[in-house]
Amino acid sequence: MQQEDNGSREHTMANHVDVITLAVSDLHRSLDFYRQLGFESPGIIGSEFEGDDDQPAGAVVMFELRGGLTLALYPRSELAKDSHLADRTEPGPGEFSLGHLVSTRGEVDEILRLAEDAGATTTGPPHDRPWGIYSGYFQDPDGHLWEVIWNPGASSDA
Amino acid sequence: MQQEDNGSREHTMANHVDVITLAVSDLHRSLDFYRQLGFESPGIIGSEFEGDDDQPAGAVVMFELRGGLTLALYPRSELAKDSHLADRTEPGPGEFSLGHLVSTRGEVDEILRLAEDAGATTTGPPHDRPWGIYSGYFQDPDGHLWEVIWNPGASSDA
Repeated sequence: MQQEDNGSREHTMANHVDVITLAVSDLHRSLDFYRQLGFESPGIIGSEFEGDDDQPAGAVVMFELRGGLTLALYPRSELAKDSHLADRTEPGPGEFSLGHLVSTRGEVDEILRLAEDAGATTTGPPHDRPWGIYSGYFQDPDGHLWEVIWNPGASSDA
Repeated sequence: MQQEDNGSREHTMANHVDVITLAVSDLHRSLDFYRQLGFESPGIIGSEFEGDDDQPAGAVVMFELRGGLTLALYPRSELAKDSHLADRTEPGPGEFSLGHLVSTRGEVDEILRLAEDAGATTTGPPHDRPWGIYSGYFQDPDGHLWEVIWNPGASSDA
């Protein structure tokens, strides 16, 4: 089961990135900025999830892009909390994450194991969020942050 | 012409990101890593562009993703040179860039001005590359790096 070749794997990350999350220091400022560039969004959503010491707050901005891609803006402090990477005052590898959607809960675990086998470092066990998704993070060899996401509310062919 | 409202703008960045470029320290290591995750690529291309003190080298890895998105791996030193951001030994805001394709040369200049009007910092004048593209970079309020790209070799409806 730990073969180098992916041919025998049921699930890999083949050929899709679904969400680009940019860590920002001021959600309102960044929403204004990207709207000025022409990106369209209904505005800040998820503010009802206030978060606490353990749980990140849910306020986020989403821009739906061409080809099914989402560009998300999320406070730096909350992305650091959500991904179990320490908050940084200086920009760092937790400044953004690349989101990869899968269609089952088990696939999240499986892809995280695949990444670990490939040399990635996971930043903590995958977990459920109050807003419904189940996900976990890993860092690639340069520290780039990926989030593997199962969203039970999305269509099953995600 | 400097209105806050984009309604009168001929070109904006509305709703597409086309290339995600990850800065890496070892192109071979990262190619192996992403192939193990299931991403498919013909391998390193552009090695014939060796670069010099002013010009970055061209060696790069491209993964063609679903929905027309490209995930690119590019050496940290060359991305720093190409974007006129100083090379960093620690991960920083030049660690990746988001690529936005446009269909004319003039649109590159126009979008960069749009970004500056919106508060972005450009990292130098846009310029031609030996491999054919014309592009320039800007940084958003958090330092996130965007590249606005005209590729004369691509279809005109890009």
